[in-house]
Amino acid sequence: MSVVKFLELSAQSPQGYEDAIKQAVERASSTLRGIQSVWVKEFEAVVENDKVTQFRVNVKISFLLEGAGAG
Amino acid sequence: MSVVKFLELSAQSPQGYEDAIKQAVERASSTLRGIQSVWVKEFEAVVENDKVTQFRVNVKISFLLEGAGAG
Amino acid sequence: MSVVKFLELSAQSPQGYEDAIKQAVERASSTLRGIQSVWVKEFEAVVENDKVTQFRVNVKISFLLEGAGAG
Amino acid sequence: MSVVKFLELSAQSPQGYEDAIKQAVERASSTLRGIQSVWVKEFEAVVENDKVTQFRVNVKISFLLEGAGAG
Amino acid sequence: MSVVKFLELSAQSPQGYEDAIKQAVERASSTLRGIQSVWVKEFEAVVENDKVTQFRVNVKISFLLEGAGAG
Amino acid sequence: MSVVKFLELSAQSPQGYEDAIKQAVERASSTLRGIQSVWVKEFEAVVENDKVTQFRVNVKISFLLEGAGAG
Amino acid sequence: MSVVKFLELSAQSPQGYEDAIKQAVERASSTLRGIQSVWVKEFEAVVENDKVTQFRVNVKISFLLEGAGAG
Amino acid sequence: MSVVKFLELSAQSPQGYEDAIKQAVERASSTLRGIQSVWVKEFEAVVENDKVTQFRVNVKISFLLEGAGAG
Amino acid sequence: MSVVKFLELSAQSPQGYEDAIKQAVERASSTLRGIQSVWVKEFEAVVENDKVTQFRVNVKISFLLEGAGAG
Amino acid sequence: MSVVKFLELSAQSPQGYEDAIKQAVERASSTLRGIQSVWVKEFEAVVENDKVTQFRVNVKISFLLEGAGAG
Amino acid sequence: MSVVKFLELSAQSPQGYEDAIKQAVERASSTLRGIQSVWVKEFEAVVENDKVTQFRVNVKISFLLEGAGAG
Amino acid sequence: MSVVKFLELSAQSPQGYEDAIKQAVERASSTLRGIQSVWVKEFEAVVENDKVTQFRVNVKISFLLEGAGAG
Repeated sequence: MSVVKFLELSAQSPQGYEDAIKQAVERASSTLRGIQSVWVKEFEAVVENDKVTQFRVNVKISFLLEGAGAG
Repeated sequence: MSVVKFLELSAQSPQGYEDAIKQAVERASSTLRGIQSVWVKEFEAVVENDKVTQFRVNVKISFLLEGAGAG
Repeated sequence: MSVVKFLELSAQSPQGYEDAIKQAVERASSTLRGIQSVWVKEFEAVVENDKVTQFRVNVKISFLLEGAGAG
Repeated sequence: MSVVKFLELSAQSPQGYEDAIKQAVERASSTLRGIQSVWVKEFEAVVENDKVTQFRVNVKISFLLEGAGAG
Repeated sequence: MSVVKFLELSAQSPQGYEDAIKQAVERASSTLRGIQSVWVKEFEAVVENDKVTQFRVNVKISFLLEGAGAG
Repeated sequence: MSVVKFLELSAQSPQGYEDAIKQAVERASSTLRGIQSVWVKEFEAVVENDKVTQFRVNVKISFLLEGAGAG
Repeated sequence: MSVVKFLELSAQSPQGYEDAIKQAVERASSTLRGIQSVWVKEFEAVVENDKVTQFRVNVKISFLLEGAGAG
Repeated sequence: MSVVKFLELSAQSPQGYEDAIKQAVERASSTLRGIQSVWVKEFEAVVENDKVTQFRVNVKISFLLEGAGAG
Repeated sequence: MSVVKFLELSAQSPQGYEDAIKQAVERASSTLRGIQSVWVKEFEAVVENDKVTQFRVNVKISFLLEGAGAG
Repeated sequence: MSVVKFLELSAQSPQGYEDAIKQAVERASSTLRGIQSVWVKEFEAVVENDKVTQFRVNVKISFLLEGAGAG
Repeated sequence: MSVVKFLELSAQSPQGYEDAIKQAVERASSTLRGIQSVWVKEFEAVVENDKVTQFRVNVKISFLLEGAGAG
Repeated sequence: MSVVKFLELSAQSPQGYEDAIKQAVERASSTLRGIQSVWVKEFEAVVENDKVTQFRVNVKISFLLEGAGAG
């Protein structure tokens, strides 16, 4: 019985959206195994002193539930 | 102070959607107590060699937060 | 690399929506640090014997991921 | 001048969604004639003691307005 | 205490959408008083033998609740 | 066979949203029994001479269908 | 086994939306048979030199699939 | 560097939606140049004494930003 | 370079939604190869003489584009 | 020809949502006349050191366009 | 009478979203002429062994219908 | 009393989405101060002669309202 869980993270990068997504996946995979897929839900940009300093994404990540708690 | 937490799971079954939902609830209740309700967010079907092999659901499950971490 | 996680809670109060939101944040902060922001996704009211007894909110809370598991 | 009215009902069944939809139509047709179509807006499941006990649907039913009040 | 009720109707006309809306309002006002406003939710066209024969609207009509039943 | 019906009302109050919701429920319960739940769909404010004079809500109320007409 | 296919077209007319919809249906029926229904998804207007010159619609058309390729 | 700005207007006409859209564009073009396109976001009808008196639209208009303030 | 195309079909069955989905996939696969996945977008029921006679689904099917035209 | 313009503001208050809405209207009316209506699009809460410090709203305000620029 | 048709494709690239979009357009233009515009509907990322390997987009492409079948 | 205003711009760049966003912010900051945040609402691509020539974004920019008109 394969059950998949979803979690939502937000990450940012000064380089661009692709790099921000990689950071979110890197952080998730530091404690989770079996990452299945990533949907990008939101795209933002952080502005400081009228300059874009960060490209930020909200991503929904799915991973295969093993023994870990479903909570 | 009763606070409820939501989590999102995906499960599948070759029989049908009702059975897929039961599997998601079964997996959640293996580690959580106080399941309150289930909303079905998405319905999919898995196709292999032009045949439907699995009926898949994304469900949002709410459960009563006790002492467990809110994280 | 600052990564933020989202979780969804529901809380209620007989006084009003603002108090219900405070309860959700209070419960979350009992086990999480670095709460960033709160969006209210849903507003409901609980009715018993034709009287409104509770004001209920579904809130999405973001908090800074430290060492805690991303699961 | 054929005018159609919409109403929204919720019904449930321990067997499955198809049966829950039939119950909603049965209840509506007990007092209405000229039912035209049914859209399923929401799918839920009721959980008691960690077991799915009911499959619940919210349906939008359209029926032909005859002499009945439009209110 | 002025409370407003909403109802959803669908009407059609071979001439166009404006006429279809007028028909829905005419039908509603045949049994309701105090119509406040009309929102058009959906626009369709009925096709018979490859020709458009009817322009159909789904409208949400609000009217002031007086003594009438709220059901 | 318990079937629930939904209706949509709008009510307002100079005090605030909680009071406006109570008014909608009070009006509905004057002619309906078995009110189950209330969802707030829209929040508005009425402005007269640049001052907010009313807080208005659109609410979706569900109630248990007994013998009453489903129309 | 009757299966219906959907396609999305956009058409415009200087006269109005009803005429634009008729043009979309006329174009579709030049190569398709069994057109079932039309939903209007989007309404736009084309502006040239500050004047509205065209009324444009995006429509979703359904037609009965016969022997034609489903691609 | 061509940058486009969006603004949202509402206009009405007793004749129909096409005329209401023309009025919105006419009003916008009285103080703006470079209008690019118009999307119709909402369709309403104003009812007085049970008769439709106005057809109202909410439109989103885009225009080319020149020297004008972006505020 | 693997490119996937989406198409939208509607199918129905007197037995239930799972069977209706199988019929849509069967029809699609009669002329297409490489079907990847199926999302169910809409659930309806057809009512004749106050009885549910058909369970209907709108499905979005993705398939791998080979040499076939992208039109 | 009465044309209405929409603008979107965000305001906050430590007391509650009603007060935050009043602040947005007060700020808008300091430079605009003919405010027609207010829709609340988003509800948030600002959290500092695990305490809710502000209740924030995004509101859409409509006002009657007079001679002012439509830009 | 210029009528435009829409089709939906999905493409992916290890480099990034811009390249994935170019691939979808390249594939579409291999068999279609008169491509008008591209809307990106979905952004995903494919993860293999905890690494992002592909950036995937769902795009909606519009092209001018000439003699080609509208099916 | 800090009140924030939102405006919606569209900008494009042949290089990519990140650059298009920077252009929108640059244009806004040429006449506005206190830019707070940027949400990307839409992603498009401009196609000329079957080649992608521009990457276009619709962005919603928030900025702190000072003395400037709220209109």
